[in-house]
Order: sequence, then C-alpha cells, then structure tokens
Amino acid sequence: MPEPSKSEYFVGVDFGGTKILAAVFDSSLKCLGRTKVSTKSERGSDAVIERVSRCVQDVVDECDLSLKQIRAVGIGAPGAVNPEVGEVIFAPNLEWEDVALKKELEKKLDLPVFLENDGNICTLGVYETELKGKPRHVVGIFLGTGIGGGIIIDGKLYSGFNRTAGEIGHMVIEVGGPKCGCGNRGCFEALASRTAIFRKIQAAVKDGQKTVLTEMLGEDLKDLRSGDLRKAIRKGDKFTEKIVEEAAEYTGIAVANLINVLNPEVVVLGGGVIDALEDEMMAIIVETAKDNAMSGTTKGIEIIASKVGDDAGIIGAAVLARRESK
Amino acid sequence: MPEPSKSEYFVGVDFGGTKILAAVFDSSLKCLGRTKVSTKSERGSDAVIERVSRCVQDVVDECDLSLKQIRAVGIGAPGAVNPEVGEVIFAPNLEWEDVALKKELEKKLDLPVFLENDGNICTLGVYETELKGKPRHVVGIFLGTGIGGGIIIDGKLYSGFNRTAGEIGHMVIEVGGPKCGCGNRGCFEALASRTAIFRKIQAAVKDGQKTVLTEMLGEDLKDLRSGDLRKAIRKGDKFTEKIVEEAAEYTGIAVANLINVLNPEVVVLGGGVIDALEDEMMAIIVETAKDNAMSGTTKGIEIIASKVGDDAGIIGAAVLARRESK
Repeated sequence: MPEPSKSEYFVGVDFGGTKILAAVFDSSLKCLGRTKVSTKSERGSDAVIERVSRCVQDVVDECDLSLKQIRAVGIGAPGAVNPEVGEVIFAPNLEWEDVALKKELEKKLDLPVFLENDGNICTLGVYETELKGKPRHVVGIFLGTGIGGGIIIDGKLYSGFNRTAGEIGHMVIEVGGPKCGCGNRGCFEALASRTAIFRKIQAAVKDGQKTVLTEMLGEDLKDLRSGDLRKAIRKGDKFTEKIVEEAAEYTGIAVANLINVLNPEVVVLGGGVIDALEDEMMAIIVETAKDNAMSGTTKGIEIIASKVGDDAGIIGAAVLARRESK
Repeated sequence: MPEPSKSEYFVGVDFGGTKILAAVFDSSLKCLGRTKVSTKSERGSDAVIERVSRCVQDVVDECDLSLKQIRAVGIGAPGAVNPEVGEVIFAPNLEWEDVALKKELEKKLDLPVFLENDGNICTLGVYETELKGKPRHVVGIFLGTGIGGGIIIDGKLYSGFNRTAGEIGHMVIEVGGPKCGCGNRGCFEALASRTAIFRKIQAAVKDGQKTVLTEMLGEDLKDLRSGDLRKAIRKGDKFTEKIVEEAAEYTGIAVANLINVLNPEVVVLGGGVIDALEDEMMAIIVETAKDNAMSGTTKGIEIIASKVGDDAGIIGAAVLARRESK
C-alpha cells in the first residue's frame, strides 16, 4: 500500500472550558484516533495553549504520524472569536480576553491553524457530515460547560458584522435570573448548561436535598458528569429528573426564540449534555419549543439531536481545516 | 403640466392592531396624502378588510386620484404572514388565523396587492429610504400595539423557512413573565409594547397609584396614547418615567439578544412608542443593550432610532408595492 501523502491528514481540536479533545482525520473525514486532556483554564492562557499544542502532538503521535504529515489544524474555541485575525476576543469560561490563539499555536506546531467559534464549528461539522449540506437555514445549539451555537443561512456559516453571530448561550431568557459567566443574569447558558445544572444540584444538596447522586459520588459531588445524571434518573431519582427537565424546558424556550427570530428549517442540538441525556431531554425540548414558538411558525421545522454527539467539535474543526487549507 | 401616468402611484398601507394608515406615494416615494382609520378588530376579519379597502379608496380620493391610476398596493400586516400566498397565518393582536388578506383586498380594489409582515415592511422601508441600502446586516425593531421586527441579511429581507422570521416580539425574555397576546408568557411584546406599558399603568392606577396621567385623561385613562406618556414625564411624573424606563430596559435586553444571535451592523428602532418617546427611551435602550450584549460583540454596531418614525410602515409598504409590481 502506498504511503498516504502529507496532504491527506487534518487535526480537529474541540477546545472547551473543561476539556481539550484533538483528533486526526483523513481527507474523507474518517477519524484515525483521538486524545483528550483537561483544559485547566485556571493556569492561564499560556499554559492552556501549551496544553492544546501538546494534545495535538500527542494524537498525531498516537496515530503513528508526524506533524509534517498534517496539512492543517482546525480549532473551535468557546466565546467570541475573530477567525480572520485568529483571536479569541472574549471567552468567559476560560477567562480569556484578546488571546492570539492561532498565532501562538502556529508558532508551537509549525502548521497552519484555522480558528472559529466552537458553536460555529460544531454547526459546520453537523451541517456538512450529518445533514449533508442540504437544508438552507440551520441553527445549531450545543450544550456543554457553556452553550454555543451556530447559524447556517443559505447554506453558509453566518457570522455577522463582528463575526460573533450565533452567541445564543448569552441570549437572556429570564431577566434577573441566575448569574452567568459573562457577567449578566438570566442567559440561556446560566439556565441550561452543564455548569448551570451542576450548580443547581450542588446548591440543593448543600441545602439538604437527598439524591442518589451523593450515594454515587459522595456529598461533595466531586467528578459529577452529565452521564451521572442519566444514571441517577434511571435509578428513579426524582430530584435529578426535575432539574434535567427544567434545563430541557429552558432549552425548549431558547429553541422557540430562535425559531421566532430565524425560522430555520432545522434546529440541531448537540454537545455533552444532549449526548448524555438525549432520551431524558429531547422530547421536552421539542414540546416546549413548539408550545412557545409563535403559532404557524414551526410547520415542517425539524428539531433534532445530532447523531455525531460530542464529536461535532472535532469533526467541524477538521471540516474547517480541510476547507481553509485547500 | 402633463398628467402623471397610471404607473406613477402606489398605495402603502400600515395595518396594525389599533389603526389602519394608508398613504399614496409617487414613484420617487414622495407622500401625496394619507388617511387613518381605527382597526376595530373586534368586528372580525371581514369587517376589518372592508375598513382597509375603504381607507385605501379614501386616501386615493383625497389625493384627487382614482384607483385606476394606482399601480399597486403594498400592505404590512401584524403577525405571521405568508407573502407568497398572501395570507395572514396568525395575528394575535387581530385574533386572525389563516385570513386570505391579499385575495380579499384584490377583489375589493381590483388592484394588485402585495402583503408582508409589518415588521419586515417597516425594516424594508427604513433600509431602503433611510439607510440607503448600505449596511449588509440590519435588524429592525418596531414598538407599537405589538412589537414587530425584520431582518436584513446581505442586503436582503430574510424570511426563513416558513417566511415567518423576524418575529422578535415573541422572543421570551422573562420566563414566567406577563401573559402575551400570543398565549405565552414573558415575550418581549408582553413587556415593552404600548399594550404592555398601558396595561401596567392601568393596573397600578387601579391599585391606587397617583399619576398626572389621570389628571390629564381621567381615572379610566380612556384614550391614553404614547404621546401622553411623554407629556406626563415632562411634567415630572416619576411613576410614568419609571414604567417607560422599564420598557426601555426590556427593549435594551432584546436588542442585546439580537446582537448576540445575529450581530447586525445596524439595529434600528421605530414604531409609535419610539416615535413618541425617543428622548426618554433611546439612551436607556443603547446602554442596556451594550451592557447585556456579550463583551466584544457590539464594536462598531449602531443602535439608532429611525428618523421616519411611524411612517416606516407606509413607506415600506410603498417600497414593496413598487418593487413587486415592476
């Protein structure tokens, strides 16, 4: 078998507030291997960029490749991103402001790096691989540590005037509601992200709430993950079920808002929370969205969970790297 | 002077929950005259369509023209509208569902009629006449009896999959908030429209609140108008000032949401409420929007009050009629 040429490999990086996931793809977007490290944002941007760089090098090595065989790296970062200059403008979950991520990574890896907002990247990944680029207008919503989003209009990623469109996680849906990482109150992200769900659970437990989660993980709920919520619900834990239902209802309201404003053909949901809790959340999301969207506006609109699950970020980043390095 | 040919006149109709305003324009969009009647939606759709038809005939007659000299009629209607089939799908302020407005009006007037959502029409009018079609991405927000909106993307009216995009009045911004005409709770329209403002004032007065508004208009506040709020504030009425400030804050949050989601170059506000209360509301709207939009996303974005004021509807309807009858 002939050695694949250098141009056939891409690295896609899903860079979030909790974890960095890097994967190598061939030119047909087949995943050859992946590596995950925690972000450790508290160590500051220089240390985090070093971790991203190391994660990329590790996954390339794991796949028995060298950096010289990689054509380009795509990376999705949380928060407001300027893809043209390659900077993270503002990322509350990382406590970053004006970080030249593209330039720093290119220096460390000696490879072309293409940066986009994580929500845009996930939407692009789902749009090109799962939806086959068919619907004209799509909104992607990704529930993880934060909530990211992306908008496809007329088949293209829509980025707006400052290239920050799609920041749907910071859409206020409950004026005066819980505090968000961005400094405001009542953002969708402060009501339905994993962070929001965990905070609610931890506060209730502190107030004496009984739940099987503490039996599973101890009173401090250290290492709580979205999958634990699913396990607790399946063990009949009504408290956890209610908290997850509330997050699903808020998500349904956000979906309705986006249908009222953008009237897309498809709303696709993904991210770690949906991946772990699809069965528990999707029916409530769809029902609440249809109840709250204006009468007559949801006809024919699909509200679906992404099948690629938490891989949307790495796939989208690889799609970006492949497209931009052409 | 030669008689202007038939093709040089258009009628633009701004059809709202409270009033029907029709105006005749020449082909350079100069307004030759206007007529206003109340909507009287409680009389049902047949009677209201008859009133629209009569209003068009009256204004044409007022301008010493005949219907034969009109090339086309444009009309903006509140609620979800399908411009292709010419139907009002759902208009909570009129209590209309599936009304064939275009067909009925064409029958009565024997003229081509072009229908669009009122928010879209107002945005189109402001975009083409006031903004000269220059910004690429624009969001229009119009505060009147209800709250309508319109979205311009890449210089064109964006209407989405079911042609109902831009229903920003029904974006939920306060989960569990006051009941909206659409049946939901906490919609932007239920918090900052003229209806919402008046309802708050009337409820407070009923509860014993003192205000110069009752001195001006009597205890029942019959015939209360947006302009009365301005007069009361200028007379030093702190209660009215606070109610208007709250509506401006909610509007600022809605603007921030739209900046987070769509990142337009210009957000333009108009409608009767802004027309009457621009000095009292705009500074608060801009400040609240900038506070609530995600850091880094508002750079260079203009948030402005339309100069055409309450005429946006008739101008936009004339722009539509001129464009569609070409």
